Amino acid sequence: MKAKCNVASSNTKRSRSSVQAKAQAQAPCGVSTGFYSKDDGFVYCDDVRVKDVRQQVPESPFYLYSKNQLTENFQAYSDALSGIDSIIGYAIKANNNFLIMKHFREMGSGAVLVSGNELECARAAGYAPEKIVFNGNGKLYHELVYAVKEGVLINIDSEFDLENIRNAAREAGKAAKVLLRINPDVDPEVHPYVSTGIKSSKFGIRNERLQWFLDEVKKDGKALDLVGVHCHLGSTISKVNIFYDATVLMVDFIKEIRAQGFDIRYFDIGGGLGIPYHRDTDEVMPSPSDLIEAVRKLVSELGVTLILEPGRSLVGNAGAFVNTVNGVKSNGQKNFIVIDGSMAELIRPSLYDAYQHIELDQPIPGAERKVFDVVGPVCESADFLGKDRELQVPTAGTGLIVHDAGAYCMSMASTYNLRMRPAEYWVDGGKVKKIRHCDTLAEHLAKFEGL
Amino acid sequence: MKAKCNVASSNTKRSRSSVQAKAQAQAPCGVSTGFYSKDDGFVYCDDVRVKDVRQQVPESPFYLYSKNQLTENFQAYSDALSGIDSIIGYAIKANNNFLIMKHFREMGSGAVLVSGNELECARAAGYAPEKIVFNGNGKLYHELVYAVKEGVLINIDSEFDLENIRNAAREAGKAAKVLLRINPDVDPEVHPYVSTGIKSSKFGIRNERLQWFLDEVKKDGKALDLVGVHCHLGSTISKVNIFYDATVLMVDFIKEIRAQGFDIRYFDIGGGLGIPYHRDTDEVMPSPSDLIEAVRKLVSELGVTLILEPGRSLVGNAGAFVNTVNGVKSNGQKNFIVIDGSMAELIRPSLYDAYQHIELDQPIPGAERKVFDVVGPVCESADFLGKDRELQVPTAGTGLIVHDAGAYCMSMASTYNLRMRPAEYWVDGGKVKKIRHCDTLAEHLAKFEGL
Repeated sequence: MKAKCNVASSNTKRSRSSVQAKAQAQAPCGVSTGFYSKDDGFVYCDDVRVKDVRQQVPESPFYLYSKNQLTENFQAYSDALSGIDSIIGYAIKANNNFLIMKHFREMGSGAVLVSGNELECARAAGYAPEKIVFNGNGKLYHELVYAVKEGVLINIDSEFDLENIRNAAREAGKAAKVLLRINPDVDPEVHPYVSTGIKSSKFGIRNERLQWFLDEVKKDGKALDLVGVHCHLGSTISKVNIFYDATVLMVDFIKEIRAQGFDIRYFDIGGGLGIPYHRDTDEVMPSPSDLIEAVRKLVSELGVTLILEPGRSLVGNAGAFVNTVNGVKSNGQKNFIVIDGSMAELIRPSLYDAYQHIELDQPIPGAERKVFDVVGPVCESADFLGKDRELQVPTAGTGLIVHDAGAYCMSMASTYNLRMRPAEYWVDGGKVKKIRHCDTLAEHLAKFEGL
Repeated sequence: MKAKCNVASSNTKRSRSSVQAKAQAQAPCGVSTGFYSKDDGFVYCDDVRVKDVRQQVPESPFYLYSKNQLTENFQAYSDALSGIDSIIGYAIKANNNFLIMKHFREMGSGAVLVSGNELECARAAGYAPEKIVFNGNGKLYHELVYAVKEGVLINIDSEFDLENIRNAAREAGKAAKVLLRINPDVDPEVHPYVSTGIKSSKFGIRNERLQWFLDEVKKDGKALDLVGVHCHLGSTISKVNIFYDATVLMVDFIKEIRAQGFDIRYFDIGGGLGIPYHRDTDEVMPSPSDLIEAVRKLVSELGVTLILEPGRSLVGNAGAFVNTVNGVKSNGQKNFIVIDGSMAELIRPSLYDAYQHIELDQPIPGAERKVFDVVGPVCESADFLGKDRELQVPTAGTGLIVHDAGAYCMSMASTYNLRMRPAEYWVDGGKVKKIRHCDTLAEHLAKFEGL
């Protein structure tokens, strides 16, 4: 476990202005953390100018992370959970960089997985099986056999999933430690694509069928060891009362299940805490502490191990997508900044209509401010990183930063237009270190060798 | 050039019923082409049951193509262009499988590119530089130097693009053969994400600025050799009058430019012909012949080489995404078929709200029909391949086919949830052959070696 850096809570920092950033620079541990603008108009990652990082790094675009911010984000959860028996299960689908995974594991993290490959990766990164949860509505049989053998916790999502898990346990020759994914039908008030706990969702069991699931488990205790319940409401959630409401419902389910003799030891409350993507507004998001305090009393009374599944709130604000301006153009109606990054590397704006804050990495002396669409070189109109952004008119070669790109950005990257997926770096103790090699065209061409 | 297969035009076939498919099976050259259901209820690729392909292939999901259909699609363009000096420029962003690229090249195709990597790939596949067009609003300087050295045609998209091309030509020590991308401002009546030729688009020059571009070219004839004009209206276009309207406008531009002494030898009309994704309706799309006939007279009178940029209409209906059913579930309101394929391999439905026809690969004797959402195992609600599809209730292990997946499917695949990008196969002369190796987790982990 790393020593705690006694700076302001990461929640406060996310919405900081340059004034706040200045206060931040004077924090006790002596290092500013994360991505922010200083009064000099430059954007920094920790105490390093992103412009300087760009000069050290041969590739463009690339992903850049603040290792300190990753540490702080994890620590915020760890602190918030003080006094509660708990597992922080990092949702590695948010960002599967192997070094980031290892970093959280070294801090004591567990992992929440959605594929056999993620399980293999988590085990390679040293995650302990007893801190791993295997989620998903479509887990494959061979993945389940592997998961049971490893001894990880497995969420039952449906009737056929239960059947597959039972058969996998028999093949593995040991009981599967299972949780039931219950659908609390609480509206998370988010984009439909990231809402996962309402009744019309593809996830979770049908609660009216709960008794059927319990009876099935009772039938074969050697294959299925029911140890907990799980819910997951969605993603980008901005109100903690939603977690409270879900927990109230889940407490009733746990009592009902315990009354039938099951030893329920885990309550997996899922993940989904949002982050304040709108950095230039007063948007405030609940902190891990806000979330935990909302449910602390209910959870303590239950006497369970609380599992959390943070993804976005652990990595989102610790990453940025760093681009170079190729040029500026106008079609008479609109102005465009054309950068070298694109929807291939970062699809959230076009897929979810998501907002991510955009800044130039440096002030442009004397340049006027205009409203731009920030677009990439990919040949379709879906290729934008931001719309209607007021920025100084940049010169070619200026750095352009898409903020809060640590989560669901690189992990969703494609090679559309034969763009190779970029390298990743982090700032660690003031030094820039590569944490992922970029893809190469040779690797693409090797896919056709011998055919 | 392959011998022509004298079957019905590919346009007719796309909307064929099983009766039409039967007629198709009796076509003169003795082979049914593409993906279709026969009266026996099985889905075929050419004359091979997809179910049988699945048994031969170790992976699931995978992409499957009909080489015959690829051939026919190209031939339809080739035939339609009879009597017109022309280049068919395959838009390889639609599908960059190297064997598919080589197949079209062997049939006489040119290539339309949007990145330096695509150019490198096209040259490796043997495409001749004089049949290559380099497009895009964000071409990078080093890509342009490479393109000029290779001697390919380059579309000028903006003021800064012209500047980059001119500098690249100077560095390369030879003139760049350039076309001006003009924005005809004709509404293609398609999804905004694939509309690229209206005034608010990020693509193309601002037409009021045409004279500025011509003057810039005049200034430095050694660096810039203006040989043509280009327009591109968008994608999934269903009405050929849109191409006619654009051509009328482009003819005027060509006359205006020629009047200033430029030797305009190419008219690049772009691509964008749609395909009938709605296979179970009477949707009819214009054929390549319909498109060419709409503009033949105008183009002939101009005395130019016509460049077409088909992508989707060359590969779309020749590919399918083949999945295995993992299970069926209900949440009380909706029924779900959960397959092993996902939005990671095929993102068009979630990104563009695109419809692709879905069928089980075989009849399920005695099974009732229900309305399902077809979803994958990826952990978010965006992960669907189709909604509200009436299908027989499948058993686990049944094949499920997402049709018309040859274009903008595999080329946009990601490894989200650490799902490895799938293998590709085609049916060639009745035999199943692998045409792309799948990704492996070892390749992913290698990205972090030595760091």
